[in-house]
Amino acid sequence: MDSETRTRTEQVMDIVRARIDRRVLTPGAALPSVRAMAAATGFSKSTVVEAYDRLAADGAIRSRPGAGFFVSAPLAPLTLDRIAPAAEREVDPVWMLRQSLSYGAGAFTPGCGWLPADWMPEAQVRKALRHAARGDAEGTLTGYASRLGSLPLRTLLARRLEDQGLAAAPDQILLTESSTQALDLVSRFLLEPGDTVLVDDPCYFNFLALLRAHRAHVVGIPMTPQGPDTAAFAAALARHRPRFYLTNSANHNPTGATLWAVTAHHILTLAEAHDLVVIEDDIFADFEHSPAPRLATFDGLDRVIRIGSFSKSVTAAMRCGHIAARPDWIEALADLRVATAMSGNPLSAGLVHAVLTDGGFRRHIEGVRTRLARARAATIARLRRHGIEPWLEPTGGPFVWGRLPDGRDAAKVARAALTEGIVLAPGNVFSASGIWGDYMRFNVAMSDDDRLSAFFARALR
Amino acid sequence: MDSETRTRTEQVMDIVRARIDRRVLTPGAALPSVRAMAAATGFSKSTVVEAYDRLAADGAIRSRPGAGFFVSAPLAPLTLDRIAPAAEREVDPVWMLRQSLSYGAGAFTPGCGWLPADWMPEAQVRKALRHAARGDAEGTLTGYASRLGSLPLRTLLARRLEDQGLAAAPDQILLTESSTQALDLVSRFLLEPGDTVLVDDPCYFNFLALLRAHRAHVVGIPMTPQGPDTAAFAAALARHRPRFYLTNSANHNPTGATLWAVTAHHILTLAEAHDLVVIEDDIFADFEHSPAPRLATFDGLDRVIRIGSFSKSVTAAMRCGHIAARPDWIEALADLRVATAMSGNPLSAGLVHAVLTDGGFRRHIEGVRTRLARARAATIARLRRHGIEPWLEPTGGPFVWGRLPDGRDAAKVARAALTEGIVLAPGNVFSASGIWGDYMRFNVAMSDDDRLSAFFARALR
Repeated sequence: MDSETRTRTEQVMDIVRARIDRRVLTPGAALPSVRAMAAATGFSKSTVVEAYDRLAADGAIRSRPGAGFFVSAPLAPLTLDRIAPAAEREVDPVWMLRQSLSYGAGAFTPGCGWLPADWMPEAQVRKALRHAARGDAEGTLTGYASRLGSLPLRTLLARRLEDQGLAAAPDQILLTESSTQALDLVSRFLLEPGDTVLVDDPCYFNFLALLRAHRAHVVGIPMTPQGPDTAAFAAALARHRPRFYLTNSANHNPTGATLWAVTAHHILTLAEAHDLVVIEDDIFADFEHSPAPRLATFDGLDRVIRIGSFSKSVTAAMRCGHIAARPDWIEALADLRVATAMSGNPLSAGLVHAVLTDGGFRRHIEGVRTRLARARAATIARLRRHGIEPWLEPTGGPFVWGRLPDGRDAAKVARAALTEGIVLAPGNVFSASGIWGDYMRFNVAMSDDDRLSAFFARALR
Repeated sequence: MDSETRTRTEQVMDIVRARIDRRVLTPGAALPSVRAMAAATGFSKSTVVEAYDRLAADGAIRSRPGAGFFVSAPLAPLTLDRIAPAAEREVDPVWMLRQSLSYGAGAFTPGCGWLPADWMPEAQVRKALRHAARGDAEGTLTGYASRLGSLPLRTLLARRLEDQGLAAAPDQILLTESSTQALDLVSRFLLEPGDTVLVDDPCYFNFLALLRAHRAHVVGIPMTPQGPDTAAFAAALARHRPRFYLTNSANHNPTGATLWAVTAHHILTLAEAHDLVVIEDDIFADFEHSPAPRLATFDGLDRVIRIGSFSKSVTAAMRCGHIAARPDWIEALADLRVATAMSGNPLSAGLVHAVLTDGGFRRHIEGVRTRLARARAATIARLRRHGIEPWLEPTGGPFVWGRLPDGRDAAKVARAALTEGIVLAPGNVFSASGIWGDYMRFNVAMSDDDRLSAFFARALR
């Protein structure tokens, strides 16, 4: 056997191993016939026979007389990298998540999605902790949560939803650890691997990482300043038969867009016609100046599942999110949650309830809204000085979606920033389509800062 | 069309609808040909044609000229009931979980898996909360956790593992919300739907509910008082090519069995030969009198993944579990965790760390061990008075696995108990095989109680 023959054989072996590795071929699966493999790869049948024989000798595959070859290798563990699309970008949602949670104490993080510590209601959180330490009922500090989670918090949430025009009984609400866990649970409830999900393009980058972990096929709907493009939405519904549409309506992440009533109505009409479930992540509700339309409110929790959390407005250190949905779905979701996470965190629920009902909290949030409005104006002015143009001027929320001058590659700029301890959020991590490569998301609470100007003065020179 | 014909047509329609409902047929999937369906069901081809036409008229399927019929119905949401085995038992793991977390304040719960409130270190938890309320570093009460979770707690866990003879660096440890969430994450990392998992028979009932949610094929290995039956283990490895083996070694739930060194060595040798991953849930480690062998310790975290939590010994109200594993697996698990849950709970981690390092905690746990030993002896004596014989007399932990007299159906007894506000844990919820139908798991911390005797005196009469 000469060296060239060995090389060809090894190429075929590599193809088979890669298919096993990527789970295209799973244990017990039949390999293509020698003839089919030869046709597909362009190698000769004798090369394929040689490759199959050697893989069988290695134990990676085995032959069943008369039936062909079958995969015997143990499965390779699933990693997000492995299930990523073929044309993986280096600066991707997983990269963004790693940066967001791994930065050191000295890092400057205008690309992150949360408010700085001194914008958070720390005084109310401390007060809630002192209150919890005194406690009253035995076992509340050491026992499991009830199945749906704290009734006082669910009752309070139901009242807050009613204030938004959404009637939901407390038993239509399931407490979770976070809105991410809420979305994960709902995805588990609704998705099979390979199902299509519609998202906004751009959208919150962790939506893409989470849906990738569920092996969903993600289709982006271009955003407009009034919400998703309804013509593209209608076309995607007809073409892809998606399982659900995932969005955040108010203070859209990352664009800051606000859903218009006409868009909400159109989206829901299309959803009804195609029996589509809609998941609305309302995580920035507390940062809104005047209430914008919500899909959940228009729909009344018939086909819309509303998720949210208090990580942005109360505390991210005490995980507490929620799902509001049809009662039968909440029942099924509660079973799934118990099976996969046992119980919620009753301490976190109690602390969040204490903060929300503290008289100081309403004043605090009003102060945050005013502060955000000022910071937003200052950030936009500062970005414009560097030639960075906002896609729109948001009416609420923490984000500005800005376009770098001269079609600069935001991923390259973000990578350069990271070498200086600055975490930025480049457009491509928010988009499955990759059409937002010259955009960045700025957190206005951290972006009106001379360090950012100094960096851009050099980087965009 | 006469009525009999209509009935046959509807039977075929029901078969198709059930397949869609159970996701045997997913949207876009081709239906069997008319000929194949007729052959498979025994109905005539004209009946099948009629059924397909009517399903198409209903919109459940659609025809593509020249290509046959395809499913068009939206997917039915996934529920644990729907993915349950065909011969579903009414009193199943999901039933048990619902009872466990839904009982009212007045319920008596000798079937539950946790210790009563007055056995928990509430004083230390209160102290930890007061300490947290004072806080020192800005943002620790409102910010996200780092990617792997609190370094002080991971360092402490690494030291505790080292005390057990298991060398693990802090970056080999990922904090989670609970050992259930830890197992869920690992299952997500390793499993594809349809993969086989080995469990002990009997095993902790939530293992079965969780694996069902992952659509794993579960194979039970009969337990012996020295650990799993190694001959059955070897046979299952050869026959099923399982993806992993899931067990808890010390104070086995529900039997109270202790793993012997000879069994541990044999299991690991077999696991190595078959490249099998082992997941060891060490949740009852704190309740052990003298340390029993652990698979993780014998293996040194090569193919064993160790999971655990402090829900049983510190508090279940502040969710805090962990995974110890190979560094590359921890990296991948951390990515998956961020994508599906964003961040851990830094407050819970800080509180658990404070309790564990409190001088009073060691004394508290020693007291719990002594109290458990006394309660165990008293429970066994009490059960024997009712003809309930323990499978073995455990050397540690909270459980006794007892056999009802005269082959009584434990599920029936548990259902009768529930009408009196008593939550019991019948054997069938712990077993995929259903061979433990006359057993019950008793929590010794709640079972030396006259209410239990009064119930059994009537129920076992």
